[in-house]
Amino acid sequence: MIEQLKFEILTIGNELLIGKILNTNAHWLSRRITNLGGRVTRIITIGDDVGEISSTVRDCLARKPDFIITVGGLGPTFDDKTLEGVARALNLSLKVNSEALNMVKMKYESLGRARGEKIELTPARIKMATLPEKAKPLTNPVGTAPGVLLETDGVTIICLPGVPEEMKAIFEDSISLIIRGKSKLIFCEKSLRLEGIYESDLAPIIDQVLKMNPRVYIKSHPRRGEGGAYIELHLSTSDESLEECFRVIDVTASEVKKHVVERGGRVTEIPIGE
Amino acid sequence: MIEQLKFEILTIGNELLIGKILNTNAHWLSRRITNLGGRVTRIITIGDDVGEISSTVRDCLARKPDFIITVGGLGPTFDDKTLEGVARALNLSLKVNSEALNMVKMKYESLGRARGEKIELTPARIKMATLPEKAKPLTNPVGTAPGVLLETDGVTIICLPGVPEEMKAIFEDSISLIIRGKSKLIFCEKSLRLEGIYESDLAPIIDQVLKMNPRVYIKSHPRRGEGGAYIELHLSTSDESLEECFRVIDVTASEVKKHVVERGGRVTEIPIGE
Repeated sequence: MIEQLKFEILTIGNELLIGKILNTNAHWLSRRITNLGGRVTRIITIGDDVGEISSTVRDCLARKPDFIITVGGLGPTFDDKTLEGVARALNLSLKVNSEALNMVKMKYESLGRARGEKIELTPARIKMATLPEKAKPLTNPVGTAPGVLLETDGVTIICLPGVPEEMKAIFEDSISLIIRGKSKLIFCEKSLRLEGIYESDLAPIIDQVLKMNPRVYIKSHPRRGEGGAYIELHLSTSDESLEECFRVIDVTASEVKKHVVERGGRVTEIPIGE
Repeated sequence: MIEQLKFEILTIGNELLIGKILNTNAHWLSRRITNLGGRVTRIITIGDDVGEISSTVRDCLARKPDFIITVGGLGPTFDDKTLEGVARALNLSLKVNSEALNMVKMKYESLGRARGEKIELTPARIKMATLPEKAKPLTNPVGTAPGVLLETDGVTIICLPGVPEEMKAIFEDSISLIIRGKSKLIFCEKSLRLEGIYESDLAPIIDQVLKMNPRVYIKSHPRRGEGGAYIELHLSTSDESLEECFRVIDVTASEVKKHVVERGGRVTEIPIGE
């Protein structure tokens, strides 16, 4: 059986820790990576602190995932400390990267032309092109700060900006291709709505079904909808072949259905995305 | 300046790692803890795996926060592994806790009476009352699985269920008081009775007021009293100085009042404790 690529996501920003914003970036990335056949093993949120960033990156590296993706802290302001933290974690120095500087310069030239003014390359702007040695900048098709890619000891570190549109654009343009190139697995899933059965009575059924289908991941979620309480049962798996992927999910869903109906419950399928 | 109490939040569940659901629990908790005067220093998400849970709890303990709050994995099914992981991290054994068992038993008795059937205490149901030694169960006013509180080496570990309504109810009933008791920051609050305005029309007003007063926590509760329906709006904040605390609350309450009255509503103060 082929091993899934392992990912750790590190979202950086005090605004997440005070509950000012919801971490939609981690959610989007997890979903996208899962659908590309990868496996997110951990999501960590820390504040804008160089010491915290560097020690956390070291902890991530020690667990030897295939990828570490950081989100946030690449901008021009004083609280954007991600690259300083990553450089410290790897004992690398920070240098102006000529390719990145060119990207930043071109952004401000084009912005300047549009506004009919010359925009200076201030230290704050040059900071966005100051990367750890050996890092490669990734084009940001939406904003100014380039993404950053760094290979170290078998782990690929990718740093993305925290603005959701920029994070997504760099991911789709540069990262999804790298993941597809390295991954050989396809992900598929199915959700069932179960009524007329307690979650605690479902436990032994799932145990039994899982014994027969150990590669399927099943999770039950108690829900409350318009028609009253029900259980959403989510089934997922991944495989090299799309056909095999769906076959395994369908067989497992049928077995769950059989057992639940035998106990007087009802089962319907919930379209994915609802 | 008085040190804030430090919190680490550990959200547990594969559904978060595959991006099936957004981590609204971590968001709500961070906001609430911040509003109680605490500081969230780290949020971690991992999967339903005993080894991962126990090693991560150990890592959290090594950083010596005042509180570790875990969310998820307290239910009756095979993939609810939080207490097993916490027990392993602390080298404690798991035992049926008589107080917790009584809570679970009473829930199913009352559910059984409502449905006119006897619900057996199956092993899956007893599992919800099986806690690490020395742990104390916390009443779950909404669902079945009790919350769990455990003191170890100066760190308070609190385990909450992942169903948002249950997590919030246990937090408000049991945890917010504990945090208030330990925090040196002073908490203060005010309740307003709003009439002649819909709760949905209130949302943009609160958004606007919160932007100006980000340290104030505001919550609206639709109520029905002798004079008909009204909204109770609860405002709270914390500070070292009682004077400053009340000043901030008073300014915020005045702003709410101004906006509500502009829209034709009426505002009166509700004495706290009623």
